[in-house]
Amino acid sequence: MTLTVLAPDGVPEVRRGDDLADLLLAALAGSRDPLAGSLADGDIVLVTSKVVAKAEGRVRPATTREAELAGETVRVVARRGATAIVRNRLGLTMAAAGIDASNVEAGSVVLLPEAPDRSAAVMRAALRERAGVNVAVVVTDTAGRAWREGQTDIAIGAAGLAVLEDHRGAVDGYGNALAVTLPAVADELASTGELVQGKLGGRPFAVVRGRADLVLAPGDDGPGAVALIRAEGGDFFGFGAREAVVRALAGLPGDRAPFGAPAHPEELLDAIRVVTGRSGRVADGVLTVEWDDRLVPLAFAHGWVAEPGADGTAVLRPA
Amino acid sequence: MTLTVLAPDGVPEVRRGDDLADLLLAALAGSRDPLAGSLADGDIVLVTSKVVAKAEGRVRPATTREAELAGETVRVVARRGATAIVRNRLGLTMAAAGIDASNVEAGSVVLLPEAPDRSAAVMRAALRERAGVNVAVVVTDTAGRAWREGQTDIAIGAAGLAVLEDHRGAVDGYGNALAVTLPAVADELASTGELVQGKLGGRPFAVVRGRADLVLAPGDDGPGAVALIRAEGGDFFGFGAREAVVRALAGLPGDRAPFGAPAHPEELLDAIRVVTGRSGRVADGVLTVEWDDRLVPLAFAHGWVAEPGADGTAVLRPA
Repeated sequence: MTLTVLAPDGVPEVRRGDDLADLLLAALAGSRDPLAGSLADGDIVLVTSKVVAKAEGRVRPATTREAELAGETVRVVARRGATAIVRNRLGLTMAAAGIDASNVEAGSVVLLPEAPDRSAAVMRAALRERAGVNVAVVVTDTAGRAWREGQTDIAIGAAGLAVLEDHRGAVDGYGNALAVTLPAVADELASTGELVQGKLGGRPFAVVRGRADLVLAPGDDGPGAVALIRAEGGDFFGFGAREAVVRALAGLPGDRAPFGAPAHPEELLDAIRVVTGRSGRVADGVLTVEWDDRLVPLAFAHGWVAEPGADGTAVLRPA
Repeated sequence: MTLTVLAPDGVPEVRRGDDLADLLLAALAGSRDPLAGSLADGDIVLVTSKVVAKAEGRVRPATTREAELAGETVRVVARRGATAIVRNRLGLTMAAAGIDASNVEAGSVVLLPEAPDRSAAVMRAALRERAGVNVAVVVTDTAGRAWREGQTDIAIGAAGLAVLEDHRGAVDGYGNALAVTLPAVADELASTGELVQGKLGGRPFAVVRGRADLVLAPGDDGPGAVALIRAEGGDFFGFGAREAVVRALAGLPGDRAPFGAPAHPEELLDAIRVVTGRSGRVADGVLTVEWDDRLVPLAFAHGWVAEPGADGTAVLRPA
């Protein structure tokens, strides 16, 4: 099986109001690369969020960076020194909410596109109208990761693409069901594009040919890249380790959501044993254990509430 | 700029002792794909950890899974229900420590290779000896991520590759320094390979042509994929949010490392204000504040220790 990836050179500086479909088609037509020329049905077009945002007029003076950051941020996930990792209005967990000062005039910053899935759908429709091809479009951005050094490009917008390749129910060559395998192909495509687009500007577009099976029928824009975002509280890393402790000890109701839905009573009992060495009992979904002040933040982090009961006990209920 | 990626079909089942270099060269020679035939200098070879582990005899009976999991695990990062995310002996943070039951005979599980960077170096040397080419080799595996749905392939072993493309010090087309940009190209290459290798078996190899600039000189195997692993305590997500609270409240000394180096006093003071509403003072690197039991876990999570001082104060010192 073969994949070819082309990132055409010679794309001019993108300005507010520019038509990205026209810019891509012109760059492909002008490219001297043997693979270039024109788009084909089943191609997957990658475009950096940087040029999408520029075309949409999302460039701001660097002096307003802090104000813009506040506007893009839903909540702080982790902060150490000058580095703030936040969950932004798109649900993306990123340093500086994705606001970037590279590949833009000095003194300016670029916000993420207003609605990247919509931006992808607009470009897909324009390419179908002008080139008569059924392609998918992915809007890409660069993001750091937990646990690993460096950054990779991910998909923050998509149209006409199966963003997750669902193998659930599929069976491998040995008859094993691929129970939880769900490759995030939209992110893998974004990372593939970064290898040819690079970071130094001048190649905001890439075309991936060879995975037409991931491209949806005309008129079906699919779930979009929003389907790649785990819902608030849906994973284990809604706060950095330090921030989780601060939030649980502060016990602010608004901080409950990132800890997820109420834990199973047995999981909370295990945590209580680890912290206090005590065991408790569960009756009618209510957990009773000898009082310990540490039960309050412990319950909070598990989506429960601890209140004083009779005879020096603590009564814990799901929040 | 163009990248071509080929994953040859027709690779036989890999068994203990098989030579992966021979298997790849045979698959390329036998492929009917126009891009196939032979390797070239500057090619980047991708190989799944699954077949590397099989060739190294790392297949175990499924009945020993729990024992093997314990052996591969350094510590639990997060657990909810049946899902355990752990940091394994390679430093990789993965579900089930990377032990997998897909693409192997039913009733068996496959461990990760013993030393994936070494496995990559051995295959690189064999390809140079037998095909006379200078290539890079990347051992890939599939991993989930924080915050996002689905999995992507990452590099767990590498030889002869610049695994991180260091743009620090580089300048974009606008004269902006790319201060912190460090693309994890080894992971992006692994994700690129997954798009053509797939998950249903039969294509354990891929060859990426077009980024010869990332391939190091013969004899220089480079930093390896270990350079992609953030050191213990080096990032913000060493524990899941719930686990962080449990660990800080339990205060077990062995749990200190994942919280990182002692925080700057001002950061700890900010946390104390958020939790207790109190302000403290710092003198000679020692922090003094009115006593509150919550200072103990708070200090622990910041790499500090809180002890009772005079007149109902708490004295906090870096651990």
